[in-house]
Amino acid sequence: MCGIFGIFGHPEAANLTYLGLHALQHRGQESAGIVSTDGSQLYAHRDMGHVAEVFSEEDLQRLPGHAAIGHVRYSTAGGSHVRNAQPFAVDYARGSIAVSHNGNLTNARELRERLEARGSIFVSNSDTEVIVHMIAASTQRAVQDRISETMAQTRGAYSLAFLTEQSLVAVRDPHGFRPLCIGEVDVPDSSEKAVLVASEGTSFDLVGARFVRELHPGEMITVDRKGTRFAQALEPDENRLCIFEYVYFARPDSVINGRSVYSVRKAFGAKLAEEHPANFDVAIPVPDSGVPAALGYAERSGVPFEMGLIRSHYVGRTFIEPQQTIRHFGVRLKFNTVESHIRGKRVVVVDDSIVRGTTIRKIVAMIRNAGASEVHVRISSPPTQWPCYYGIDTPTRSELIASSHTIDEIRRYVGADSLGYLSPEGMLEVVGSEPHPSQACDGYCDACFTGNYSVPFDDSVPPRRLRLVGF
Amino acid sequence: MCGIFGIFGHPEAANLTYLGLHALQHRGQESAGIVSTDGSQLYAHRDMGHVAEVFSEEDLQRLPGHAAIGHVRYSTAGGSHVRNAQPFAVDYARGSIAVSHNGNLTNARELRERLEARGSIFVSNSDTEVIVHMIAASTQRAVQDRISETMAQTRGAYSLAFLTEQSLVAVRDPHGFRPLCIGEVDVPDSSEKAVLVASEGTSFDLVGARFVRELHPGEMITVDRKGTRFAQALEPDENRLCIFEYVYFARPDSVINGRSVYSVRKAFGAKLAEEHPANFDVAIPVPDSGVPAALGYAERSGVPFEMGLIRSHYVGRTFIEPQQTIRHFGVRLKFNTVESHIRGKRVVVVDDSIVRGTTIRKIVAMIRNAGASEVHVRISSPPTQWPCYYGIDTPTRSELIASSHTIDEIRRYVGADSLGYLSPEGMLEVVGSEPHPSQACDGYCDACFTGNYSVPFDDSVPPRRLRLVGF
Amino acid sequence: MCGIFGIFGHPEAANLTYLGLHALQHRGQESAGIVSTDGSQLYAHRDMGHVAEVFSEEDLQRLPGHAAIGHVRYSTAGGSHVRNAQPFAVDYARGSIAVSHNGNLTNARELRERLEARGSIFVSNSDTEVIVHMIAASTQRAVQDRISETMAQTRGAYSLAFLTEQSLVAVRDPHGFRPLCIGEVDVPDSSEKAVLVASEGTSFDLVGARFVRELHPGEMITVDRKGTRFAQALEPDENRLCIFEYVYFARPDSVINGRSVYSVRKAFGAKLAEEHPANFDVAIPVPDSGVPAALGYAERSGVPFEMGLIRSHYVGRTFIEPQQTIRHFGVRLKFNTVESHIRGKRVVVVDDSIVRGTTIRKIVAMIRNAGASEVHVRISSPPTQWPCYYGIDTPTRSELIASSHTIDEIRRYVGADSLGYLSPEGMLEVVGSEPHPSQACDGYCDACFTGNYSVPFDDSVPPRRLRLVGF
Amino acid sequence: MCGIFGIFGHPEAANLTYLGLHALQHRGQESAGIVSTDGSQLYAHRDMGHVAEVFSEEDLQRLPGHAAIGHVRYSTAGGSHVRNAQPFAVDYARGSIAVSHNGNLTNARELRERLEARGSIFVSNSDTEVIVHMIAASTQRAVQDRISETMAQTRGAYSLAFLTEQSLVAVRDPHGFRPLCIGEVDVPDSSEKAVLVASEGTSFDLVGARFVRELHPGEMITVDRKGTRFAQALEPDENRLCIFEYVYFARPDSVINGRSVYSVRKAFGAKLAEEHPANFDVAIPVPDSGVPAALGYAERSGVPFEMGLIRSHYVGRTFIEPQQTIRHFGVRLKFNTVESHIRGKRVVVVDDSIVRGTTIRKIVAMIRNAGASEVHVRISSPPTQWPCYYGIDTPTRSELIASSHTIDEIRRYVGADSLGYLSPEGMLEVVGSEPHPSQACDGYCDACFTGNYSVPFDDSVPPRRLRLVGF
Repeated sequence: MCGIFGIFGHPEAANLTYLGLHALQHRGQESAGIVSTDGSQLYAHRDMGHVAEVFSEEDLQRLPGHAAIGHVRYSTAGGSHVRNAQPFAVDYARGSIAVSHNGNLTNARELRERLEARGSIFVSNSDTEVIVHMIAASTQRAVQDRISETMAQTRGAYSLAFLTEQSLVAVRDPHGFRPLCIGEVDVPDSSEKAVLVASEGTSFDLVGARFVRELHPGEMITVDRKGTRFAQALEPDENRLCIFEYVYFARPDSVINGRSVYSVRKAFGAKLAEEHPANFDVAIPVPDSGVPAALGYAERSGVPFEMGLIRSHYVGRTFIEPQQTIRHFGVRLKFNTVESHIRGKRVVVVDDSIVRGTTIRKIVAMIRNAGASEVHVRISSPPTQWPCYYGIDTPTRSELIASSHTIDEIRRYVGADSLGYLSPEGMLEVVGSEPHPSQACDGYCDACFTGNYSVPFDDSVPPRRLRLVGF
Repeated sequence: MCGIFGIFGHPEAANLTYLGLHALQHRGQESAGIVSTDGSQLYAHRDMGHVAEVFSEEDLQRLPGHAAIGHVRYSTAGGSHVRNAQPFAVDYARGSIAVSHNGNLTNARELRERLEARGSIFVSNSDTEVIVHMIAASTQRAVQDRISETMAQTRGAYSLAFLTEQSLVAVRDPHGFRPLCIGEVDVPDSSEKAVLVASEGTSFDLVGARFVRELHPGEMITVDRKGTRFAQALEPDENRLCIFEYVYFARPDSVINGRSVYSVRKAFGAKLAEEHPANFDVAIPVPDSGVPAALGYAERSGVPFEMGLIRSHYVGRTFIEPQQTIRHFGVRLKFNTVESHIRGKRVVVVDDSIVRGTTIRKIVAMIRNAGASEVHVRISSPPTQWPCYYGIDTPTRSELIASSHTIDEIRRYVGADSLGYLSPEGMLEVVGSEPHPSQACDGYCDACFTGNYSVPFDDSVPPRRLRLVGF
Repeated sequence: MCGIFGIFGHPEAANLTYLGLHALQHRGQESAGIVSTDGSQLYAHRDMGHVAEVFSEEDLQRLPGHAAIGHVRYSTAGGSHVRNAQPFAVDYARGSIAVSHNGNLTNARELRERLEARGSIFVSNSDTEVIVHMIAASTQRAVQDRISETMAQTRGAYSLAFLTEQSLVAVRDPHGFRPLCIGEVDVPDSSEKAVLVASEGTSFDLVGARFVRELHPGEMITVDRKGTRFAQALEPDENRLCIFEYVYFARPDSVINGRSVYSVRKAFGAKLAEEHPANFDVAIPVPDSGVPAALGYAERSGVPFEMGLIRSHYVGRTFIEPQQTIRHFGVRLKFNTVESHIRGKRVVVVDDSIVRGTTIRKIVAMIRNAGASEVHVRISSPPTQWPCYYGIDTPTRSELIASSHTIDEIRRYVGADSLGYLSPEGMLEVVGSEPHPSQACDGYCDACFTGNYSVPFDDSVPPRRLRLVGF
Repeated sequence: MCGIFGIFGHPEAANLTYLGLHALQHRGQESAGIVSTDGSQLYAHRDMGHVAEVFSEEDLQRLPGHAAIGHVRYSTAGGSHVRNAQPFAVDYARGSIAVSHNGNLTNARELRERLEARGSIFVSNSDTEVIVHMIAASTQRAVQDRISETMAQTRGAYSLAFLTEQSLVAVRDPHGFRPLCIGEVDVPDSSEKAVLVASEGTSFDLVGARFVRELHPGEMITVDRKGTRFAQALEPDENRLCIFEYVYFARPDSVINGRSVYSVRKAFGAKLAEEHPANFDVAIPVPDSGVPAALGYAERSGVPFEMGLIRSHYVGRTFIEPQQTIRHFGVRLKFNTVESHIRGKRVVVVDDSIVRGTTIRKIVAMIRNAGASEVHVRISSPPTQWPCYYGIDTPTRSELIASSHTIDEIRRYVGADSLGYLSPEGMLEVVGSEPHPSQACDGYCDACFTGNYSVPFDDSVPPRRLRLVGF
């Protein structure tokens, strides 16, 4: 999971990219970066940390020009290093090029080995470097043609924004796994409009820009001094937008594939109430991600909704765990119960998904300690049984509790009186019943729930040789 | 506003204080500190920043002993400096003493001048230093007697926790302005119990401790190797617990004066619906503080509640504002609208209070931009018209919009179709209708709403001579 | 050991103090601080570290006004904490006052106990806080009289610079243990002159000021808007300037008590050559402090001087020692030999003093490893046998090798073929033979060599109760 | 200017490299880095700053294995960025490879363009990346053959140390411009010896290793589990060791090309006394680099040497210049005069070289201010007239005062009574009169003095497109 942002034609390109990345911060908190251009050079700044930590005012001033791309990167196990921070930027024969990448190539290892065989060197472990090598090695002249040629050879999930001295180019893979939106904003003291691209349209709101439309699977947008052009770089393949964007990733105020994320989550909750009703007194969400589904569940059930779990927003990365054994300690740092609305009640607790089951187990215990007479768990997505090879850093299969346990075994592990998951059919019914007029994809990838992988992948582990242990 | 915490009789006193301060972080984010004792010395560590930033694992290891007190301090205009970070700790004739202070003395200037006249020197601008000077200058022998003698001379609002080499002492002023709770926790591998004090009982949950009761106005608790003693240090005066604890300060999962804060907030919202009903389609809170009142308002009105404003939790202290004028920028960094649940609807937006009116004004504009047909504002407390002299860092009177504008003028300023505040009577009815069996105070201070100050104050500005511009 | 600096009457008072402290950096590297005044307030900035680390340009800009005092503090064992950083600044009945202190009171404990008995509180462990308490408690009206009254009660060694909103006052103890100089500098675009005080006159050079004279023992200088006044605050006692200033502390380019430090050191070396001649081929110093004495030794002996030991200036405080045993490792980090000028030669190595003997022992071994046929050690001061109670942080007596070993035992321990120390008589002959016309003291304290303490001291360890383990 | 270090066959390879880099710190203070290997992977840590700042104990523990290479980098104008910090490390078809580079390729631009034309991408602006690309693109199988093939195509000055999972390889260019030494050290608890390479043999002293010999021009050393092999990778070309190593760069305790740097500098000074004698009373060096030459000058002249200029070692990178005009300010921060040995005297001041002339001009003025009756400047090398294209970051020709001014014009500019430079012939006579038995080069590059460039260069400025403005 990552967030990408780009803008062309605005005198404060880096500043607006900074704000756009802030609005996409939920998509990646490990590192952030911006590359800008003034038409003759690219300027790059990247570092570990949140957007507000990575950029000082002085840093932004050293990113001049009318165009920029940015990136926020999710914390992943192996590759946590500033040299993996994006945008990835290089010099090559035709000038400089930078890229922001959201997604995962399924044939990266094969492509990398092919490139190494012809003498290429790699400074990072990322798929992104593979993409840049292929663009540099392309025999095409125009950068768009180099990008198209590269796309034709890569497999998997990607949304990409490129910046050169002259242009901003963005593409979406032919399956449309990862979202990518187009926006526009008026340039101050001018009749011109600047063009924007972003992982989520909600980032346009913060910079005062308007959402225009989503990019179609396989489509390319090019923005330069001559204007904006669209092209179908690759024929769209079987459309498969990642349904987990609705379940968890995207901000609730975003609109993805024509649908309000908040509304979809509420509808998941309502459908869940139909599929797995309960006799209960109060529905409470696991905040913040479970709130809309819990509202939908409560509303459909006609039973009160309460914020019975309070979430602390002060839990930082550096928190020290004490030596002493305190019950349910880890989860208590983040959540606490509102006993007055739990004691003596039959409680339904709603969350978006269960990965390992350890967190929901502690939450159930906390709710029981607060005096609940019954605790029913409802999950607004199907059991997560399969790893994602299309850009989400999920645990391996063996760590996913639902891949090796029945629903009842999970229920017993988490300590609930009952447990209900939304069915795959129910989920697809919510998002797919009637094509939305403005949607860009007509199907969804639900491989994490069904194992139905539409693009083959190589899950052999490539040899990681070079270890960057510090800077 | 500050948070205080203390523990006596636990081998991990500093670790538990660290956790307790984390749970009180909402009461003060400017600085944090812990002083511990091993029976022969006091050990102090204090710094600017959040609890998780101030203490490393190594720092905690350098705070040995079986007793500790801690403090989190709110960001105030003038005195932002590490030398004002608490606990304040000194050597004096009888040994060492440290103090954590929540509150404000109303006769601090007079006391300070009296102390200076007899040769005292001051290294900070805080009331706390005045208190310590008076304890040191007391002719009493026992530290409890020195504290009692000092309390008899101070006026105003305070809850205090003291630590000496031998004991933990905590007191609450005779009006009971600021809350102070007592708890206990089992000591591991022992049959002993450690005693705790804290501004809010919710901090006991995190360390696995049990809430025992609130300290009464004017009451003192002493914990040492000989056990725990209670004493009425000063006769309780007219009881006046700060009602703003219910409105805004306290965590919703806390119980203050015997009442669940979450429940009181919901009841404020319900009462507000009775006093100021509206024809509307959806009630949305200003998160997070407005959530319970909005739930109460919606429930009493029988109209749906939605999380129509999404709050970003990534807004840090160092965020850079861009030069360009973006409409409603500042508030957009923190909030965004869920358009799908606002467009075409009559919206009631619920917040806890209005100070200057600038934030709610931008929120109303955002909701209109998202397509609301009507926007009604409901505030779950009366108009804030008077500054607080009892420990809350409120703006001066001239900055409080309600001190110089009518309700209708405020409505026009914030751009709402209607505006309703909870009445003082409604508010007191919610908290005061029937004395709660376990409540420690039988009245409330509502001076910020009514100007009804129960303790006289000297609001002449003392000369600030020494300026600590760095460390 | 510490360095103090002060200036009155210059529009860039803090900037010049910053530079003056930089020139005094050799007198203390632990912490640095400046307090300035604009006539109505004092402004303070202090922190741990070197002058260049402690002050940013922004920090200096927040220290406005026409007068300032500064301080650099030596790293001492127990009291390493930012709260001990000076100048120490407080508010008291007559306004604010700050003090920079170089020296040590011998009756601090007694004074402190007397102050505590009357109710004083202490936030640090320093003598300086005692001085400020006494000034605040004085019944005199004028600050000069308060200072004089305080001086009459304190015993020991001190040079002090005070800053109030109206004046700069500096004094030297009646023995003149610690140096203190007066200077003046032209104020730009003005016919006025600003007045300066400093531990060493070399700091005047850097700010473009002129050395005027040294302050006499017991003398006080007051500078304010009305001009400069001198007064004999206390009658001078038996004069006893610390002779170790010549041996080691002062910069070689300084003039102390009318004598060039560099010249005195050379003369020590020459006298040493007379007292302890040797048959040798080359004289090499332990750089940098041993250079002038080695030059004097070589010159008087008529034998070549070579920089046969090279000193690295990159050894920082954070250097990590490897696990592996490397011979003479610690000293190798700092020194290395120039083998071409050592191999096959009879070497005299000259250093200023021996404390524990561990460093010179490793140096002797390094010189032997580099091929010297003989290694003779010459020390340009007498054996250091007694601790200093007058402001220098020396080891306890048991750690001083010369307090418990004969010269020959020390020679064997350090591995030299011969060892010679300058005699106390030789040393005094160099500095005392003929009174220098501009000298302020007519005698020297050599207690560290002779045990001849002119001021009695209380060396019982006061109870350190409050431990500041972090900030 | 840079420093390189490498070791193979020692269980504490990274620790010893850390110490070796510390001993080479004078060759580069901008950045430092180490890459180690345990036989299966490379581990890399690099950052801006001094060695002691870049590596914490934890960092060193994350650099496991029996072999390592390190690098310290000089601060150069354009390329100051952590991504230029070395060793440069990549993955390629045959595994991983890292390189530490001291020198400068004269055909880097041509090689880079050739590589870009075949599709290579560049993440830095350094020659080092060009070398690694060529090694990766080589059709040879063994890494030594790839390195040899690369060397055959590169022109210019370089000493290189390579590390792969299996081996340490080091080479010196066929001209021998930059020094490179071989050493060995006993492995603790073993009968094995580890092999080391380093820019200067003085770094062996610190780690307890022995100097073996210098690598010959064009020679390659390979160390792996099978042992140590030497090969003549390229035929030696006209030998041209950089003579500036003797003048300024190398540590005085180093032995370069068989000669003690300290002795050569003294001999330069003695020769200078013969060529440019003076009637004077005292010779003083500009410390530290001018000390040996001044000693030689004084000794040959039979006139006293004094340390008449004192250098401050506290001048850091962050020092703030005050606004006020203080005469000779910049140089005063670093140097001060010992007036007692200057006043009334005819002074010869000796420095190693003059670049722009601004520093020596201020020093001359300071010495006159201190009362010198005459000031004669003597420079222990010829006028620096030509830029270096072989690895030293010299100013452009127009900034070198000697390229456009006569000796007498320079004398007038610096304000000296006389000015004498060592002649090129005198300089070469000192180093070249009789071939030293252990010398590796039989000639010297003196292009900076003579313009006699032995290797052609391309001084057209390559387009710098990608700007790394932060990380």
